[in-house]
Amino acid sequence: MKIKEFRGILEKKGADFAVFYNFDSTKYNANMLYFSGYSGIGALVIPSKKEPFLIAPQMEFQRARKSSIRKVFSMDKKRFFESIYNIAKKNKLKAKIIALDKSAVTLNAYRHIKEQFKKAKAKDIAYECLKLREIKTSREIQFTRKSCAYADKIIQKLIKNFNKFKTESEAAAFLEYETKKKGLDIAFEPIVASGSNASMPHHKPANEKIKNGFCVIDFGVKYDGYCSDITRTVYVGNPSKKEKEIYNFLLKIQEDSIQLAESNKKCSELYDFVNTRLGKYKKYFTHGLGHGVGVEIHEMPNLTLNSKDRVTDNMVFTIEPGIYIPQKFGIRIEDTVLFSKKPIRLTKTSKDLLII
Amino acid sequence: MKIKEFRGILEKKGADFAVFYNFDSTKYNANMLYFSGYSGIGALVIPSKKEPFLIAPQMEFQRARKSSIRKVFSMDKKRFFESIYNIAKKNKLKAKIIALDKSAVTLNAYRHIKEQFKKAKAKDIAYECLKLREIKTSREIQFTRKSCAYADKIIQKLIKNFNKFKTESEAAAFLEYETKKKGLDIAFEPIVASGSNASMPHHKPANEKIKNGFCVIDFGVKYDGYCSDITRTVYVGNPSKKEKEIYNFLLKIQEDSIQLAESNKKCSELYDFVNTRLGKYKKYFTHGLGHGVGVEIHEMPNLTLNSKDRVTDNMVFTIEPGIYIPQKFGIRIEDTVLFSKKPIRLTKTSKDLLII
Repeated sequence: MKIKEFRGILEKKGADFAVFYNFDSTKYNANMLYFSGYSGIGALVIPSKKEPFLIAPQMEFQRARKSSIRKVFSMDKKRFFESIYNIAKKNKLKAKIIALDKSAVTLNAYRHIKEQFKKAKAKDIAYECLKLREIKTSREIQFTRKSCAYADKIIQKLIKNFNKFKTESEAAAFLEYETKKKGLDIAFEPIVASGSNASMPHHKPANEKIKNGFCVIDFGVKYDGYCSDITRTVYVGNPSKKEKEIYNFLLKIQEDSIQLAESNKKCSELYDFVNTRLGKYKKYFTHGLGHGVGVEIHEMPNLTLNSKDRVTDNMVFTIEPGIYIPQKFGIRIEDTVLFSKKPIRLTKTSKDLLII
Repeated sequence: MKIKEFRGILEKKGADFAVFYNFDSTKYNANMLYFSGYSGIGALVIPSKKEPFLIAPQMEFQRARKSSIRKVFSMDKKRFFESIYNIAKKNKLKAKIIALDKSAVTLNAYRHIKEQFKKAKAKDIAYECLKLREIKTSREIQFTRKSCAYADKIIQKLIKNFNKFKTESEAAAFLEYETKKKGLDIAFEPIVASGSNASMPHHKPANEKIKNGFCVIDFGVKYDGYCSDITRTVYVGNPSKKEKEIYNFLLKIQEDSIQLAESNKKCSELYDFVNTRLGKYKKYFTHGLGHGVGVEIHEMPNLTLNSKDRVTDNMVFTIEPGIYIPQKFGIRIEDTVLFSKKPIRLTKTSKDLLII
């Protein structure tokens, strides 16, 4: 995506090229994936004035060839930056200023880069990449819509079958199974948190019985690299009147805060709105209101207290207020929202409190 | 694990303390997990002479309290290093030399560290951490044994039911489902690669029909943080005599190379042995012979051409030779092996060519 725009940024910065790399087959570099569609081991070089190229180890070569980058070079055993140096030299690529995502480049990788490109200076483009990725193209929006549709479908299937699951792990495993068998990825480890576990926003599903009370289900898939993110809270057993009230209280806040999104509004204003509306529950809302969603599950914009981001057309972000009473219970309701002149909910699963 | 030993290393290096951090809820810091058992967002500080402590954001506080570190502090919103600075100051922690895993600390994180600890110097402990983790304690071996036993059980269940699966994705999803419903994690994305896909060692299971021919299944779980790693290659359809021969040829090499492991032998010798035995297939063996396994799926030792590692008691590593003929087929056979005076196979699933 947006390679042309990105090269414009490089030119403006006076950078000769940018390098992104991934050493580890169990991880991926979000920017490399974004620009090339390739998520394996290797490095992506985007020169400001020449054609971009990938280098990949022999074992990953066929995979790299399937990316959107036409030029793919095979590299020496793990000698990433030496290979890049050799290719750059051969292609007469200038290397006075190298653009790096300094939030992804480690100190040791940087040392290796400096060993090869001795006279080069590094310029940070972490922020520029995030800003570029913050505004989605129509193709990205299309992928995100599909991602959200799948997330809806799968979470609904879970909820429909919820009483068949004995443990949190089983329910979480079901979400993953339904995702994977379709050839999709999960966007993050699904959360199924019942009883007092739900008071931990990032609870890891345990191999223990699903307890009575609120049960938070947080889930998302990746479709062609693009994430979705949805949370629904169901109730296992019979909720008291007060429990229903607090759920609907939070739901109303969630819905109102989505509607509050308008062009150029500060994201921090949405957060403030929720915080104020939560009143005495404010102190039990222990995370941000939301985050951008794209090739990573957490991107810009940030919907937090100190965020300087503003709502802009073609942003995709979550709205996910929660109330967590330590050791007691937790509720979170979350949608993935596209902003395009107005807020458009991409996750459409019903938010009425479901009693199981 | 091994905090005491690690503090000894810090003292020797003249470091006042080490810091490990994790900003991202979808990732984890392997060393933080190793030393504390905590894998969420936060930072772990291990002073050379005082008690270690964790800092975690409010939303992760309960999880952090479940770690093996007794002192847990709540931190300011995302202000990791400022929080550490304040706690360090309060506890009169000297900060002349800070030990960092420079293979995990990014340039931007380092800038933040320097902003707080202005006069501090950084010493790299990436290698020391890897070396510490390379030799397993009896507790770690116990976890790894269990991890391998689960991997065996689940891959056997898959193989038994293999003809029920239509697509690679379905088969891979089954492996994950069986893992997750037990409350375990996968050690990495399972690989199910059939037909010509098997010629890509890191093929991503596709939502397409399982093709006839060799099918590579690469899988592992995490038990209490500890990884297992096993690959079996089955045959879908009727193998030719030549195909059976090449499978058994590779199997014999795999078994012989395991037996070759002995105390103080260079790991590169094992790799050389396999390479030589592969003869004309040598050029189709495009990755290392194996890698250490622990809280990360790829650790030390490296069983590669240029490795300087030597086989030592209480190492756990994989032995996984493969033959990959581009666009045609692939075979890999892999076990997780514990070395304790002699090589002990921890993954025990039969390696006879299974015809499905």
